[in-house]
Amino acid sequence: MSTWSPSASVSSFITLSTLSSRRSSASFETVPLELIAEAHSKGYHSVCLPLTTEDWRKRWAEMCLVPSDSIQKRGRESRRESKLVSRDPSAERKAEAWRENPCFEREEVTITRLDEAEHVTAIISEWLELDAEEDGIRYDAEIALQQELAYASYLNIHTAILPPPRNRDHISSYARIVRACLSSAPYMNLAIRLPVYDTSILEPVAPLSPSSSSSSFRSSSAPSTPRLVVSGSADSLNRNRFSTTSAPLEAHIDAAWETWDLIRSICDYNIRLALALDLTPPLPNSPGVLSKWAAEAVRYIFLPSSTFIANAKGYPHRPNIIISGASSGLHKRGGEDAYSQYVKHLERTSSVVQAAEKVGTVENFAQGYQDYLQAPLQPLMDNLQSITYQTFEQDPVKYQSYEEAIHKALLEWPKQDKIIICVAGAGRGPLVARSLCAIERSKRGHVCLYAIEKNPNAFVTLQNRQRTEWHDRVHLLFGDMRLVEIPEKVDILVSELLGSFGDNELSPECLDGAMRFLKPHGISIPSSYTAHLAPLSSSKLYNEARAIKAEKSLETPYVVMFQAVNLLSGLPPTNSHNTRSAKLRFHIPHAGVLHGLAGYFEAILYGNIGLSIHPQRKDQVSKDMLSWFPLFFPFKEPLYLPSNSELQISIWRLTNSRQVWYEWHAESFLGSSPPTFPATSGGQPLPPILMASPTIGVPSPLIDAVDLLPRSTLSVQDAPERSTARLVKIGHTSLHNPGGRSSWIGL
Amino acid sequence: MSTWSPSASVSSFITLSTLSSRRSSASFETVPLELIAEAHSKGYHSVCLPLTTEDWRKRWAEMCLVPSDSIQKRGRESRRESKLVSRDPSAERKAEAWRENPCFEREEVTITRLDEAEHVTAIISEWLELDAEEDGIRYDAEIALQQELAYASYLNIHTAILPPPRNRDHISSYARIVRACLSSAPYMNLAIRLPVYDTSILEPVAPLSPSSSSSSFRSSSAPSTPRLVVSGSADSLNRNRFSTTSAPLEAHIDAAWETWDLIRSICDYNIRLALALDLTPPLPNSPGVLSKWAAEAVRYIFLPSSTFIANAKGYPHRPNIIISGASSGLHKRGGEDAYSQYVKHLERTSSVVQAAEKVGTVENFAQGYQDYLQAPLQPLMDNLQSITYQTFEQDPVKYQSYEEAIHKALLEWPKQDKIIICVAGAGRGPLVARSLCAIERSKRGHVCLYAIEKNPNAFVTLQNRQRTEWHDRVHLLFGDMRLVEIPEKVDILVSELLGSFGDNELSPECLDGAMRFLKPHGISIPSSYTAHLAPLSSSKLYNEARAIKAEKSLETPYVVMFQAVNLLSGLPPTNSHNTRSAKLRFHIPHAGVLHGLAGYFEAILYGNIGLSIHPQRKDQVSKDMLSWFPLFFPFKEPLYLPSNSELQISIWRLTNSRQVWYEWHAESFLGSSPPTFPATSGGQPLPPILMASPTIGVPSPLIDAVDLLPRSTLSVQDAPERSTARLVKIGHTSLHNPGGRSSWIGL
Repeated sequence: MSTWSPSASVSSFITLSTLSSRRSSASFETVPLELIAEAHSKGYHSVCLPLTTEDWRKRWAEMCLVPSDSIQKRGRESRRESKLVSRDPSAERKAEAWRENPCFEREEVTITRLDEAEHVTAIISEWLELDAEEDGIRYDAEIALQQELAYASYLNIHTAILPPPRNRDHISSYARIVRACLSSAPYMNLAIRLPVYDTSILEPVAPLSPSSSSSSFRSSSAPSTPRLVVSGSADSLNRNRFSTTSAPLEAHIDAAWETWDLIRSICDYNIRLALALDLTPPLPNSPGVLSKWAAEAVRYIFLPSSTFIANAKGYPHRPNIIISGASSGLHKRGGEDAYSQYVKHLERTSSVVQAAEKVGTVENFAQGYQDYLQAPLQPLMDNLQSITYQTFEQDPVKYQSYEEAIHKALLEWPKQDKIIICVAGAGRGPLVARSLCAIERSKRGHVCLYAIEKNPNAFVTLQNRQRTEWHDRVHLLFGDMRLVEIPEKVDILVSELLGSFGDNELSPECLDGAMRFLKPHGISIPSSYTAHLAPLSSSKLYNEARAIKAEKSLETPYVVMFQAVNLLSGLPPTNSHNTRSAKLRFHIPHAGVLHGLAGYFEAILYGNIGLSIHPQRKDQVSKDMLSWFPLFFPFKEPLYLPSNSELQISIWRLTNSRQVWYEWHAESFLGSSPPTFPATSGGQPLPPILMASPTIGVPSPLIDAVDLLPRSTLSVQDAPERSTARLVKIGHTSLHNPGGRSSWIGL
Repeated sequence: MSTWSPSASVSSFITLSTLSSRRSSASFETVPLELIAEAHSKGYHSVCLPLTTEDWRKRWAEMCLVPSDSIQKRGRESRRESKLVSRDPSAERKAEAWRENPCFEREEVTITRLDEAEHVTAIISEWLELDAEEDGIRYDAEIALQQELAYASYLNIHTAILPPPRNRDHISSYARIVRACLSSAPYMNLAIRLPVYDTSILEPVAPLSPSSSSSSFRSSSAPSTPRLVVSGSADSLNRNRFSTTSAPLEAHIDAAWETWDLIRSICDYNIRLALALDLTPPLPNSPGVLSKWAAEAVRYIFLPSSTFIANAKGYPHRPNIIISGASSGLHKRGGEDAYSQYVKHLERTSSVVQAAEKVGTVENFAQGYQDYLQAPLQPLMDNLQSITYQTFEQDPVKYQSYEEAIHKALLEWPKQDKIIICVAGAGRGPLVARSLCAIERSKRGHVCLYAIEKNPNAFVTLQNRQRTEWHDRVHLLFGDMRLVEIPEKVDILVSELLGSFGDNELSPECLDGAMRFLKPHGISIPSSYTAHLAPLSSSKLYNEARAIKAEKSLETPYVVMFQAVNLLSGLPPTNSHNTRSAKLRFHIPHAGVLHGLAGYFEAILYGNIGLSIHPQRKDQVSKDMLSWFPLFFPFKEPLYLPSNSELQISIWRLTNSRQVWYEWHAESFLGSSPPTFPATSGGQPLPPILMASPTIGVPSPLIDAVDLLPRSTLSVQDAPERSTARLVKIGHTSLHNPGGRSSWIGL
């Protein structure tokens, strides 16, 4: 398998009843060995197996729970104290002995041998209530969980799936216990099983009171599978029933995510903690309702066989899919193997996977770079290596667009004039070559071409190309474009100084210095560019930035090919401003955690020819362009954003005489009335790039640029005038990168 | 002056018009020297002085602002670009030269000599708009501010007061500039002038649009004192007008605090940043509306002479009071000196100052300890020093209460029986002595007294006292109460193992071990105790805890005598529970920042005799008891809490076989409907201590105690049952001290 593969691994869920009903055959030493071999033969990569049996459940309940009949006679208040009152002293003595020295009897566990545990993911006893209402039950459940994890470790099992949280009031206790387990079992990966929403909203039953559930399962003889794990035909009914109530359903999906957010926050984003998303509940048809999970560490997906009427296309990246109930005969025609085969079929036919396999696509080019943090280039301060130039010269789109822009400009230039073109920052010469092609195609006489380069090493390459290819068609000038002497003023200034965020590689400052030799009515290619920002949630990127050992790693922007991220709000429509600072407002429709900002740019080269990495426009403007991944501005502390909140981002581009840097800051608000934002462009087409009006500039007092020069502008969503008094401030981040202390760009 | 003094320093505000209208007399070399000498002779400790003159303002406006007439002709949209369009090219050239090399002309500053700057606080040009709507004005204002601060530094001035923020939309820019100045002027203290609310709500004028103010001040000839600095008779009118609108006023006072909170957060709680609270606006009569400022770094208070009809009793700790308009002749009878004299009179007569001067009060005892962080004692793990015992033995109240409790218990004991008393943890013997007094007073025969102590050094002192004072009235036993052999079972067990938070010095664990030798119907003194928690805001404590160099200094509790703190919510009424964990809900009436939790305890010794450090009950239960300061549980990241929000605190007392520790966590919520909390006891008397029902114990599964033993319980505010679905989660902290990684108590 390559370092990154979009393929899912498929697991089979072996239930306790399958384990206990099967008699071992002659060909296998134990029942688990036989079931595991069967699963492999059906195409599953691994199996999920409960570790403990009904015997353990019975003993634990006798030791640690009050007999249910004594509870039913009591009111709410007295129940809290009933445990001591009604407990059998001998049960309490046994419990104390167990707490002191927790261990299993042979009959209480399903497997005992190393070979039975190979490729096994342990399912922790589903009846353990880590978030029970009663303190005492929680404490005992914690001991039992630690005991089970210790046993799994003993068997060399590396991953365990915990029972889902059930009680909103004690999720913080549940999470605290998970954190304690991550600490005491340092090689174990834990996954929290979480239904996409609380299925109780579908069923006309009383709310699951933890005390009643903990007490009732002993008295009832029916298996007490937690509600969240239910699969089978009952769901088909529910699926129909729920279609009328999709609005509250969204709130419940938000609530499930909120549960996860609290747990992983309390566990401090531990990379050994993942999510086992349970898709057993019937899913809504509205696309995007599950998109927030794309930003999370979803390592497992529970799919009951009954959900195979659904289209599984939208599942998150590289998950492990656990199929339950495959042997229940629900889809007799295809047989059991059909499930895993169908998952693989869906993968093969997904557009993402297909694009990744096709040479020339961004998806193919970017393999291995997904969610990988790179420090942005500093081509002004550092002299690039030849290999770096080579990588960027491979872009099949960018230089073609430049050639078209130069060609178009030449065609539109008044016929009578002689034309002077200058490539400022020629590198190894790709724009020189494209300029020559454009000149040739335009059939204009009297064109003179200069090329300026300050990297002495690249200048050797340029000299070589001049001697071998270009000869006297090009005049080479060595030096910094801000200082170099040029024999005559130029008509067309061509440059490629753009960074992922537009001005983050000092294009404005370099071009300021080149203005000396541009004629008053000369033109610049690119003629303008705009930076775009969107708030972003990605626990993966947050963890990656945090893992970098440098002290201020969370205060510096990174170049990243985004994969496991969720944009919390649509990008605001473009609105050029003559500022190097911006305050942006975003409506946050669904609760999320702000981990950073995604930075993009869009440039107009000339006329209607442009370059764009804006996610909603790049395919229209410059499809398959490879040169830029977006910029990621991280936040040190994740900021929680509730549904329907407003996020306000301030970003400043600052400078002193030696360097340039960005600072950024966020505040969150809740409104008392529904927000009145202009609709952000979800699926609607944005105005064509022609409409992006170039900034007719008011010079900034600090760094000026001149009309018709590329200008760095931050896009601002002009929210309608509204009374900010109606907004309630609910949180903010610290100011990031103050004074450029952790990241700056050298002039 | 002692290390801590509650006294305020009083400053005189010298205005620009006073400076410019006065002619220098023969006896002083310059006008400023004369005015400063006059202020000192009138009893002021220092003066506040504007640094720049009207000349500077005119030059700056000519360079950096658009002529106001050209603006008035334009609409809102075009104004943004008007600066360039209408700017005089020669003005722009001058501005560029100034930006490159910012400096003053002689006539543009008020003072030039070191002796003129002694004891002077610089008032930065009040017309500087650091939060102007236009980027360009903000940038130029930042340069001008840096220039002014550099000049103040040159004159050895250590503090400057900045003009107030005026534009909510650009407070983050204002704050970013302040942070940049704190960084570039590393020895300068900055104070933000902030009116307690925006006075524009009192006046029928158009809202202060920053652009209009910046453009208008040039054209108007009237002095453009910012609205926030207004003093004089106009206020008397406003004072009457506003009494009808006190509810919106509270919202405005919250908004002012929110402004401050954002600025100091963006400045990362820099200790050189303080607040100059402007009390010029008429103040509401409702007490408590200003209490939130008690938790803030208020270093200056602006008092116009017109406010001297108000009672200044409630001002924050140790501020510097700036009196403006003292020479305006508003109160002719008293003359100018009367103002500073009256401030001093108010101080002398305040109950806080009087208590601090009286020996035997907590206020007197605690001098020097206010807001000072101390690590809690670990008397079980560490053997205390004699000096520590001596300090605690000085408590005039605690041991008296113990004697009363023992005496009462003896009186109520059945007449016929012989009584065995045991002091567990006798230390240097104070409880032994008190027990002997109580026995004598009770005139009971047949009383036998044991004293157990595990500190070998203190045991020497005990032996000495036995030989010299007690003789055979006491039987000494050396050893840990959990293990020591005692010849007979006891009737009354006396101990003093309580910490500030009740169980934080391992009283439950020690007494668990002492249960062996208590008779089945024996009693314990204390008979119960309860821990109380309140959310707390204190930037000072937050900064103190942050300043401690130890790595996890923000995850360990401290013992603190609270001073500059604001309790964000009332303490919940007592409600005993048999848990070692609690989830508490608090209603937050006014917006604030959660920096930590305040921990208190209350104990019943016997009958109606108790000990309490609960702030609302300590004076009723055990006035002037000195032994315990509260406990402070810090939070690593401050959590912003909006007005009318709900705060949920989880706290766990956890243990393993070697240690005990607390973990804590907070979540914040906003409700869509007004909360329905039970009224917390603001001024109302709480139930007498007799009502605090002793916990009749359900043993915890981890560490048990037995009926009638002191039990550690966390108080829980039983919020009425309500649908949590109506609450919107808006934020949370991380889990503090997980696994006891940074603070634990050794067993």
